Amino acid sequence: MPSHHHFSTRYLSASDVIDMVQRKGVEACLHGIANYIHADFLRWGAFDKSARVASHSRDGVIELMPIADNQTYAFKYVNGHPKNTRWGLSTVMAFGVLADVATGAPLLLSELTLTTALRTAAMSAVAARALARPGSRTMALIGNGAQSEFQALAFHHLLGITTLRLFDTDLAATAKLQANLQGTGLRIVVCTSTAEAVRGADIVTTVTADKTNATILTPDMLAPGMHINAVGGDCPGKTELHADVLLQAQVFVEYAPQTRIEGDIQQLPADFAVTELWEVLAGQCAGRASDAAVTVFDSVGFALEDFSALRFLRDTAAELGMGHPIELIPELSDPKNLFGLLHTRNPLLRAAA
Amino acid sequence: MPSHHHFSTRYLSASDVIDMVQRKGVEACLHGIANYIHADFLRWGAFDKSARVASHSRDGVIELMPIADNQTYAFKYVNGHPKNTRWGLSTVMAFGVLADVATGAPLLLSELTLTTALRTAAMSAVAARALARPGSRTMALIGNGAQSEFQALAFHHLLGITTLRLFDTDLAATAKLQANLQGTGLRIVVCTSTAEAVRGADIVTTVTADKTNATILTPDMLAPGMHINAVGGDCPGKTELHADVLLQAQVFVEYAPQTRIEGDIQQLPADFAVTELWEVLAGQCAGRASDAAVTVFDSVGFALEDFSALRFLRDTAAELGMGHPIELIPELSDPKNLFGLLHTRNPLLRAAA
Repeated sequence: MPSHHHFSTRYLSASDVIDMVQRKGVEACLHGIANYIHADFLRWGAFDKSARVASHSRDGVIELMPIADNQTYAFKYVNGHPKNTRWGLSTVMAFGVLADVATGAPLLLSELTLTTALRTAAMSAVAARALARPGSRTMALIGNGAQSEFQALAFHHLLGITTLRLFDTDLAATAKLQANLQGTGLRIVVCTSTAEAVRGADIVTTVTADKTNATILTPDMLAPGMHINAVGGDCPGKTELHADVLLQAQVFVEYAPQTRIEGDIQQLPADFAVTELWEVLAGQCAGRASDAAVTVFDSVGFALEDFSALRFLRDTAAELGMGHPIELIPELSDPKNLFGLLHTRNPLLRAAA
Repeated sequence: MPSHHHFSTRYLSASDVIDMVQRKGVEACLHGIANYIHADFLRWGAFDKSARVASHSRDGVIELMPIADNQTYAFKYVNGHPKNTRWGLSTVMAFGVLADVATGAPLLLSELTLTTALRTAAMSAVAARALARPGSRTMALIGNGAQSEFQALAFHHLLGITTLRLFDTDLAATAKLQANLQGTGLRIVVCTSTAEAVRGADIVTTVTADKTNATILTPDMLAPGMHINAVGGDCPGKTELHADVLLQAQVFVEYAPQTRIEGDIQQLPADFAVTELWEVLAGQCAGRASDAAVTVFDSVGFALEDFSALRFLRDTAAELGMGHPIELIPELSDPKNLFGLLHTRNPLLRAAA
């Protein structure tokens, strides 16, 4: 923090971030966020980590996800309401803040709805780069909803996936995904079942939205060497993989204490062996044991990824001169005289009162 | 939530809330917030409560304080950095959000720095109305910093306090408080020690800022019938009362699981008997046992008070037509097509990219 009185919070609206992604390009943003995530995961020990704080209600959940290192504090607000599309609203909406640990001053307030989709896909790609077989070219994408384009593009640009095998119970979702991917160079195969979609896939990404204990993937669908990127099992009571899939695989997670509550491994005993991804990235643990092993990234979304994404937004906004200051915190001529705000400001209004 | 696509978050800046308080008047705002707090405390069982999530660092703390009933979710971001005034910044800065439980949509984003001072004072007055001896007229105010004017005015307007006995180790703070209270009708007695200030006081308010285990009040200073409003012991390692003061008093708290971590009772065993204030307000527990009893409100600040304050801000902003919509969440023509934001928005920018 500069040692003077003037301080304001920079605000990036949803439109600002849309503009930012259009100006940089989706590929550059995915690469950028993936690089920030990778760099922050290598500093794992530097962070004050906790499982997110969830408030569950009948139709969904609202969560706060804080994290900090010794310089920067971040949190994200995010909801998950699968029925929201009925009212024309997104199932997932988010915003977040970066703050200065030394003073507590909030320095950046940003939309994170679009950003969450980008960072989740970037995270998936970072994990797959470490865990999938080298030379993976075909990905099955089960669940073709709001997140699916971002997953498709992250695996195309960051891993070299060239063929997508799509399945969703909602044909309109698959049609939308296919339309949005036109011109990307990805070869698209529309399938009529999960079993068909995963056939011959090097990587299987599951990103479904129903808040149920589903079994999208069953053990009979597994093939040697497959990497499963399980994104949609991210809430108590919301899973995608049959328990036997997990038992036959090597399972990698972001932050075990949170994943045991929210991830697909919530189905398994608390002592089921998992590896935290940072350990693989840092070279402290092995990744896949062999070309024939099945690996699972049981992704639930961890606060550190939002910390990384907010850093990317802050730096990119500075580079492009985007965003505007907002007066979220009052500017005090004497910080010991908060009450003085009511005397010294807006003399006209005060006289009229 | 209305069942259509258009939704935006209302934003109240620090200037908006300053204007609001100036237009309504401090007294009306204190009364209003106190009424909202009292009403919400009577619905205690309706809330999903948890202790706040604190991130401690060398010079301070950053906290998130979420709470919800079955309709409305609220959280506050707040820091506490005692050294901040060196850099011209407030020691406490805050903002918060009200959201719709049914959809997760954030409906209001507001400054809460000024508001926190108002709600803390309103909370103190609500507690003292239930716990102090009827007819209390004299209050000692120990700690004359940023919160002190609000405490003084809340006790003046909501309890009928007419005389204040002030002490602070910083003479400039006391002079500032005295100047700010000119014209309020409060009789001011400036004292040279805590012991002198509490002499003859019906109520003692301690609102000091140092993050230490201080003993501002010691047992020799107690008088029969005194009510102690202990506001500044609100963080692990930050206390104001000698443990024997607590042992000789009836102790009331906001939310026991949080106060045992943060309040003055952090000095005592986890089974030390306390009463939650809502039980007194709801008539489920007795308040002060006799005119001679010493009562302590060990206040740390609980999320429900911010929920109440945010409701007050929302309703008052609606009444006065204040605030502006901000695009914290993107507006989607098709909520299942988040990626479509990148195609359909800002065609000019896109063409230029």
